[in-house]
Amino acid sequence: MLAEKGFIMLTTLYRRSLLGVADAPPVAKFVQSQGLKLGAGRFVAGEGLEDGIKAVKALEAEGKYAILDPLGEFVASEEGVEEITQSILAMLDTLAAQDMAQKYVSVKPTQFGLAISRDKAYENAKRIAERAKHADIRICLDMENSPYVDDTLDIFKTLYNEGYHNLSTVLQSYLYRTMADLEDLLTLSPKPFLRLVKGAYRENEDVAFQDKAKVDAAYHEMVFAALEAGASIGLATHDESIIGEVEGFLRGAKDNAPYVEFQLLYGVKPALQQRLLAADHPVYIYVPYGPDWYGYFSRRLAERPANLLFILRGLFA
Amino acid sequence: MLAEKGFIMLTTLYRRSLLGVADAPPVAKFVQSQGLKLGAGRFVAGEGLEDGIKAVKALEAEGKYAILDPLGEFVASEEGVEEITQSILAMLDTLAAQDMAQKYVSVKPTQFGLAISRDKAYENAKRIAERAKHADIRICLDMENSPYVDDTLDIFKTLYNEGYHNLSTVLQSYLYRTMADLEDLLTLSPKPFLRLVKGAYRENEDVAFQDKAKVDAAYHEMVFAALEAGASIGLATHDESIIGEVEGFLRGAKDNAPYVEFQLLYGVKPALQQRLLAADHPVYIYVPYGPDWYGYFSRRLAERPANLLFILRGLFA
Repeated sequence: MLAEKGFIMLTTLYRRSLLGVADAPPVAKFVQSQGLKLGAGRFVAGEGLEDGIKAVKALEAEGKYAILDPLGEFVASEEGVEEITQSILAMLDTLAAQDMAQKYVSVKPTQFGLAISRDKAYENAKRIAERAKHADIRICLDMENSPYVDDTLDIFKTLYNEGYHNLSTVLQSYLYRTMADLEDLLTLSPKPFLRLVKGAYRENEDVAFQDKAKVDAAYHEMVFAALEAGASIGLATHDESIIGEVEGFLRGAKDNAPYVEFQLLYGVKPALQQRLLAADHPVYIYVPYGPDWYGYFSRRLAERPANLLFILRGLFA
Repeated sequence: MLAEKGFIMLTTLYRRSLLGVADAPPVAKFVQSQGLKLGAGRFVAGEGLEDGIKAVKALEAEGKYAILDPLGEFVASEEGVEEITQSILAMLDTLAAQDMAQKYVSVKPTQFGLAISRDKAYENAKRIAERAKHADIRICLDMENSPYVDDTLDIFKTLYNEGYHNLSTVLQSYLYRTMADLEDLLTLSPKPFLRLVKGAYRENEDVAFQDKAKVDAAYHEMVFAALEAGASIGLATHDESIIGEVEGFLRGAKDNAPYVEFQLLYGVKPALQQRLLAADHPVYIYVPYGPDWYGYFSRRLAERPANLLFILRGLFA
């Protein structure tokens, strides 16, 4: 009991301090310049779209599917936003011409306008959704930290109601608001596909559970509420306890089972990926790529101290 | 990987040596005379039937049910066997007069004749099943080590086919033969209730998996084969991974869910007992009692080093 408490305190401290250190310029500079070679390459497919596509094809050859995640966050200038939007549209055109089993992209609203205004982001999200629709590409409107949740949900619902059913979005169980958001999203018709995560941003106690056990319990509640409502979900967690319980649910529900994608991050728990594949579940790997991989990468390290060991091993090998 | 292997080796060594030490006369003598006071009382209700009944009533007051397990194994003399059988019958008469929500007793065939002959055990099992039937008492014909499996299954099937549907038995996943036994038992009509365990005796590699991962996988296979055949089972394990998966299965199967009792041992994982109770599952606690509690107790210690710490704390408190 005490030991467990101590462990939680330690990992919390570790997480806080790592998110701090990762922002410090010299560390960031060093890791950014050397990181992909030193071990970040396990978690990030590479810096270019061609690296991402290569990773997708390798995964598809193993029987998995992929969700491409062009990394980057928070672009504040009109020009920057237009540039990113153009690059996403160009990426969709590139994918359209590729020979892939599934085409599936995750995009972050603060990249294409949400840091400026809801309307700018809506407009660009619609350009993206429209382009993707014609190329049979699924788009996941990713969820960022709490100040952006309202607008992201609003943009998602508006576009979904306009007929962009190739669009999905994400709910984060650590936010207090999430069960209400789930209920609201399940009133859409047809029920949207939802990616369900615990949440990885640093949020304060006014908006989010701080305690891991509470986040886990909230995740459990959210997942089963969605499944019992018959929603299709992306179970985006590496928590083997809830994964096992959902596997049991699907087995019990047989022909009435809702559609569940088991979504895991590139490079994380490869044995679990193989086990799920062997059990005939749809396995989707989130494939991040791009020059701005550093923020993503430091969140992965903060989540799990063992990942840092993996990198340190690379540093001193 | 290496650390895990080391841990498995250590716990295997620990288990072997503990099962060895537990047989050494001075240790046995000391623990037998002092053990219930020193900590074994957490796992054993007491030495007399009155202790067992008291424990059952305390459990029922909490909303749980109990399976009474009069401890003792392997009686080789005709007189000894008759004495034990008489004491079991007297116990059933005592229970018949008690005010309890459920009456449920587990008995070991080598106590009442299987160490002498199949026929002796059959005859006494029938006396027990008959007496219990009239008092609405469920009897679980417990499974012992591998030399007794054939006869126990044969006695069970014979009595079950004679109409003693208050009788159930046990399958142990560590035995190679178990999937075939399960298939065979599921041909009985109506399908019998089965208590499913991993197995706790020391068995050699000719008959049983030695590797924990294989025993776990075999348990998983057995449990889901039974559930998917619609059998009612006692999920007799403390393995929270499979417990969660079965909970998911029941949730998914909704009205088609088979009946599952979550069976746990007296004193083990109290937090898990409460969680299952809070989730509205039928929780059954296996309540061992009797002067011969030592063999049972040393198997519990061998299974889980932490239980030894619990005892040592009692010794030096």
